Amino acid sequence: MFQAALTDAQTRVQAALDASMKPLDGIIADAMRYTCTGGKRLRAFLVMESARLHGAPTDVADQTAAAIEMIHAYSLVHDDLPCMDNDDLRRGMPTVHIQWDEPTAVLTGDALQTLAFEVLADLDVAPDRRLALISTMAKAAGASGMVLGQALDIAAESAPTPLTLDEITRLQAGKTGALIEWSAQAGALLSGADPAPLRDYSNALGLAFQIADDILDIEGDAAKAGKRLQKDADAGKATFVSLLGMVGAKKRAEELVVRACDALSPYGDEADNLKAAARFVIDRDT
Amino acid sequence: MFQAALTDAQTRVQAALDASMKPLDGIIADAMRYTCTGGKRLRAFLVMESARLHGAPTDVADQTAAAIEMIHAYSLVHDDLPCMDNDDLRRGMPTVHIQWDEPTAVLTGDALQTLAFEVLADLDVAPDRRLALISTMAKAAGASGMVLGQALDIAAESAPTPLTLDEITRLQAGKTGALIEWSAQAGALLSGADPAPLRDYSNALGLAFQIADDILDIEGDAAKAGKRLQKDADAGKATFVSLLGMVGAKKRAEELVVRACDALSPYGDEADNLKAAARFVIDRDT
Repeated sequence: MFQAALTDAQTRVQAALDASMKPLDGIIADAMRYTCTGGKRLRAFLVMESARLHGAPTDVADQTAAAIEMIHAYSLVHDDLPCMDNDDLRRGMPTVHIQWDEPTAVLTGDALQTLAFEVLADLDVAPDRRLALISTMAKAAGASGMVLGQALDIAAESAPTPLTLDEITRLQAGKTGALIEWSAQAGALLSGADPAPLRDYSNALGLAFQIADDILDIEGDAAKAGKRLQKDADAGKATFVSLLGMVGAKKRAEELVVRACDALSPYGDEADNLKAAARFVIDRDT
Repeated sequence: MFQAALTDAQTRVQAALDASMKPLDGIIADAMRYTCTGGKRLRAFLVMESARLHGAPTDVADQTAAAIEMIHAYSLVHDDLPCMDNDDLRRGMPTVHIQWDEPTAVLTGDALQTLAFEVLADLDVAPDRRLALISTMAKAAGASGMVLGQALDIAAESAPTPLTLDEITRLQAGKTGALIEWSAQAGALLSGADPAPLRDYSNALGLAFQIADDILDIEGDAAKAGKRLQKDADAGKATFVSLLGMVGAKKRAEELVVRACDALSPYGDEADNLKAAARFVIDRDT
């Protein structure tokens, strides 16, 4: 059930991404398409499931999902740059600055961010709902959301002492949490509904996701993950595992999954896929 | 009259930029503020004058002007990166990657772009007008506008033969023309008016601006310009001067100024500042 829904989300968001980028040509357009291929599509899945819960039209949900996957992809392309994380592998493929070059990677990320806002502005829903999506996406992606988390992450590398649990929680709330929370609430915003239950769900989900990432960084298989692992441990950076221990981190992730599922109680059985997603987030091997 | 209006625009857009960034803190916020200081503010001036022509509220015009200056500033920060133009001086100050470091420059540009869309989404005007501004700004800034121009510019550096006049015109229409055209039309879009006369005006203005840039690159004073000059000539790149000759380039710029002013005839004397701006663009020494 959940796997079928996730696979369906992957197919649908890829079609929406392809359609959005179809009019573009040139090297940057090629690199944008390359960047927007593959991945788990967790954010797209969250958009589509929350849209379904609120009866939003499928095509609008798919385009909204494409927009947040573009923001996610832009952040990965820039994060992989030599001056940032200096990664040469992403989703099992050479990163953009390896496949092309650094200027192409900078411009590809830039253009993906721009296109994400264009897609939301042109959605076929009421103007005030489009504006709510745009305004909240900007807040989630910007200097008090995702970019703040990335900046804190970079600062942590040269910090004299490892981060505390509070600091790393704040860092991850920005770096990965903000987009995950936006995705889960998008369906409610599309429909003019109260996003509070989905906000509580995705707040717990985002943190569980990051704890699972830290666990995978230690226990995972680089071939399956399609990227380098154990980077944080090698760099001596604080992680949820270094701060809580492996047993403590797994326990904390379990507690968060329970909290995430509890937040969905207003939706009853209709939210089973989202509950399964919370379980998936901490059980995945990639 | 024009100088007073330009100085007024500079003061007003700086206040709007400061207000937009006030809630932000951290290194990225500091670098965003640093990046959004100084400059001619031609784009802000165009927004404010076109808004005045159509009776749009001053505070909304100022915030719209701040948004396009953020997009312009983001493009400069990324353009100055070592992997791009590798510039260490901008507006007479060290560039962001010199003053801080490369990751800060990447993230600062990213966050400025995001904030520009947030500012437009939160404007105090009718939803459909905000959406028109967002959608058109995305098209002007993205992979078929400004980023396309930047990509063509980078490709030109390693091209086996210098660009033709048609190719360099297309390059500049994206790289500098698209944002200038958006700025001049923004006041009409804010007011639900026909942007056609301002589009024709700014189309000629944008090209005149770029020809003047190429002339300044040869005849200008680096101390006044606050940046390195003669880079294009040193790199053997085609410019409007190399293609048209200095005399031909100046003649072409003059013709474009006349064409720009003619396009403003529907506005009569009310557009005198915009006409003076066209003259300023080719007479400036920085």
